[in-house]
Amino acid sequence: MSAARPAAPGPGGGGPAGPARGRGLELDVAPEPELGSSTQTSHRLLAYSDALLSIIATVMILPVAHTKIHPDQKLGESVQQLLLAKIAVYLMTFLIVTVAWAAHVRLFQVIELIDDVLALLNLACMMIITFLPYTFSLMASFPDVPFGIFLFSVCAVVIGLIQAVIVAYGFYHPHLLNQQIQVSENQNFYKRHILKIILRGPILCFLAAIFSFFFIPLSYVLLGLVIVFPHLTRFITWCKTKIVGQRDEEEHSNLETFTFYLSEPLSKERVEAFSDGVYAIVATLLILDICEDNVPDPREVKEKFHGSLLEALSEYGPNYLAYFGSFVTIGLLWFVHHSLFLYVTKATRLMGLLNILSLAFIGGLPLAYQLTSEFAEKSHNEIEAIQVSCVITFFASIFQFAIWTTALLHERETLHPFARYGGKEHAFMFAKLALYPCVSLGAFFLTCLLSEFSTAIFHLMQIVIPFAFLALRIFVRISLTIIKSVMPLSRRKVVLLEEEEACLSPGETLS
Amino acid sequence: MSAARPAAPGPGGGGPAGPARGRGLELDVAPEPELGSSTQTSHRLLAYSDALLSIIATVMILPVAHTKIHPDQKLGESVQQLLLAKIAVYLMTFLIVTVAWAAHVRLFQVIELIDDVLALLNLACMMIITFLPYTFSLMASFPDVPFGIFLFSVCAVVIGLIQAVIVAYGFYHPHLLNQQIQVSENQNFYKRHILKIILRGPILCFLAAIFSFFFIPLSYVLLGLVIVFPHLTRFITWCKTKIVGQRDEEEHSNLETFTFYLSEPLSKERVEAFSDGVYAIVATLLILDICEDNVPDPREVKEKFHGSLLEALSEYGPNYLAYFGSFVTIGLLWFVHHSLFLYVTKATRLMGLLNILSLAFIGGLPLAYQLTSEFAEKSHNEIEAIQVSCVITFFASIFQFAIWTTALLHERETLHPFARYGGKEHAFMFAKLALYPCVSLGAFFLTCLLSEFSTAIFHLMQIVIPFAFLALRIFVRISLTIIKSVMPLSRRKVVLLEEEEACLSPGETLS
Repeated sequence: MSAARPAAPGPGGGGPAGPARGRGLELDVAPEPELGSSTQTSHRLLAYSDALLSIIATVMILPVAHTKIHPDQKLGESVQQLLLAKIAVYLMTFLIVTVAWAAHVRLFQVIELIDDVLALLNLACMMIITFLPYTFSLMASFPDVPFGIFLFSVCAVVIGLIQAVIVAYGFYHPHLLNQQIQVSENQNFYKRHILKIILRGPILCFLAAIFSFFFIPLSYVLLGLVIVFPHLTRFITWCKTKIVGQRDEEEHSNLETFTFYLSEPLSKERVEAFSDGVYAIVATLLILDICEDNVPDPREVKEKFHGSLLEALSEYGPNYLAYFGSFVTIGLLWFVHHSLFLYVTKATRLMGLLNILSLAFIGGLPLAYQLTSEFAEKSHNEIEAIQVSCVITFFASIFQFAIWTTALLHERETLHPFARYGGKEHAFMFAKLALYPCVSLGAFFLTCLLSEFSTAIFHLMQIVIPFAFLALRIFVRISLTIIKSVMPLSRRKVVLLEEEEACLSPGETLS
Repeated sequence: MSAARPAAPGPGGGGPAGPARGRGLELDVAPEPELGSSTQTSHRLLAYSDALLSIIATVMILPVAHTKIHPDQKLGESVQQLLLAKIAVYLMTFLIVTVAWAAHVRLFQVIELIDDVLALLNLACMMIITFLPYTFSLMASFPDVPFGIFLFSVCAVVIGLIQAVIVAYGFYHPHLLNQQIQVSENQNFYKRHILKIILRGPILCFLAAIFSFFFIPLSYVLLGLVIVFPHLTRFITWCKTKIVGQRDEEEHSNLETFTFYLSEPLSKERVEAFSDGVYAIVATLLILDICEDNVPDPREVKEKFHGSLLEALSEYGPNYLAYFGSFVTIGLLWFVHHSLFLYVTKATRLMGLLNILSLAFIGGLPLAYQLTSEFAEKSHNEIEAIQVSCVITFFASIFQFAIWTTALLHERETLHPFARYGGKEHAFMFAKLALYPCVSLGAFFLTCLLSEFSTAIFHLMQIVIPFAFLALRIFVRISLTIIKSVMPLSRRKVVLLEEEEACLSPGETLS
């Protein structure tokens, strides 16, 4: 049974790794070979952490989505005054949580086995992380008071410190470490390296906490720096190597190859787990909203509707439509993401970044639902509400498309042969990924032109899309045939189609 | 890379299974060997479904937790009037969702590979399932109106129908099926068998929907029957085999061994995934509550507290304490669950049932949080609030303990050698699982005796427990040594300790 569990990152197995648990007081016992279950420990702990982190990142949207706007108030102004600032802060906090997640991924690439103490330390870390949305709520409600941003920064610092304790514990009990680090002579180098990755964010947050009492904008800049810092340093190193040449790499090659493992892409499994968490919780936030807002008050039903619940519920008609529309959007965007990652063999850092940006907009969908359900057909703001929804959907899907185009740049490393340029599923994948950006952009401009029918257009779009996905394969076939017949000797298409046939067998050998 | 993915349930691999996707229009293409990625499709889809289902089951607690009770009102009466009925309905709906989940697990044990159509059908199924909490909200708010229970039943029927369509689609495209069913001559038997499992719930719900307009109590009885039906039929078959003998089994043995695969325990992975989802979402519901209720109103801060946010927040002191206490409880119960399942090699049906009962009480923890945060030190009801919390914690942990004792009954099949009776980790595991039931029961009776100090006792308990877990290993060692010295020749203990030594090597060979 335990052999069927997900494969461990360190495939060595029979090394000197002790059992993951029960070492605390049993140092007298001779070291035993690795338990089959000990690696799994880490697996489930990480899955649980991924779930919590993705939920927490997404929950940050709630103070934004629940911003009270009077239906009579013009949304155009309110968006500028209230929402934009809140959305900016939401994006910032979402991205900061993803930075914490990335550090967590790196940390448990170094520490592969865990014991009870590590599990409890990790839970303590998670407890502080789940507190972040509250500090964000304070930040959003009291933008001028330093206390919110101070509390947020302090939490980030505490998280960093707990993770540092985990590193220290791990290096004090070397049998918990990654196999390669265990046998390495440069353990101290790895320790410094992972501590640097973990602590650079908290140090910036510490500065932000100090400056929050003097000059709040600087604190925000520092928190923003937390997000771009990893990418900035990477970009600088990349530029350096481009300008100075390969010298840097030679220097590093003295150290073992594991150095490059640490700067390698995030593991595809954890990227998927984190993404799934975001999609699942967004779908649930919608139902929470509908449970909260759309259950009529028993007294009101008696007085207003003469006890007829059905009549009272029919008042909420547009809300149900908005709910199902939003749920369909989330479900299908998950479906596209799932189809894409089915053919992704390795997620590079840039792809990871684009994925997180896409998820940040996915997290914005409850806001889109709130807007369309509150304003549709009730107030003057329906066009704005629908346009905001279209923009959110557009960005969520265009970043998915960007993951795909980025993957195509290094298709040999990152993609399954079927999905590569000229592969069997290439055209179909393209169509799948292009559908939502095209439709949401189209809906946006249509509502500009035909502002009277904006609600009808929006709902039509939400109803048609699932069927479009079902019939997509037929569309792609037909359009490929048409293209083939219209320009029968266009070089590019012939290559594409030839490769399509040729790929049927090499696809198996390459995979 | 793809080789490192979780192992597929059907390990055959090179069978006649076609590619999971792209069959719709490509029947002219000869069947290809199985894609490495196609099985993974199903894996991620199932993980996502598990996440959604567990979240939905847990969200059912919200209408209960958000029941408005005036602080001046005596909780004792309100509990009897309002909460008890709601809690009963919550337990029912939670268990019904878990029945749907179990059917979903069975369904995708039969259909192992998926394509785009199946993925979209499954998403449609999930969409209906996420709507269930809303129907439950209606049921809870309007217990006398048939519409809520009618809508709930209709949703359940639609879910059953979509799953039946999935079965039909799967058997129409046999390459998607489990290897064993594919090569079997009795495909129709399997089809009937899985349809029976999937549709028995919805048929009862259909009857419930009809009767909801005539006689609501009967509808509730029918819905209750949905929960006990699978266990009832199993119990009857078990009784029959006990009384009549092995005749039944002989009859069945004409069919292939796969028949028993279908009535085998749920896969341990999906039980873990579902449990993790419940624990993660319960932790998040707490922070949602605190975000909603404990962010002071900016205007109030200005008027009441002269603009001092810190002063306004200090009002919420007890709430923070309640939040951290509840989070620690959830985290540690997850930790116990995780420790237990680390040594479980196979989850029997009874263990699955006990796990679900434990999860149902875990889902009740947000209610405990609401009670302790709202009433502690504010009203006359603090003792009742704390006692309800203790009871919920007690049942959540005692069912975990029951999983363990049930596993011990068939320890050869279900447990890792270390955790078996006399194993190395046996005593420690016992202590871990017994800690929460003992402490919560102790706190319950202490509050009865020393009712004046009830809040102090409760908070002390919540603070002490994490340290108790950290020091548990030492306690167990010491107490074992004491027991050894007090009754040096007690037969049982000697056997235990001898086996502990002996188990060090057989443990490896058996695992």
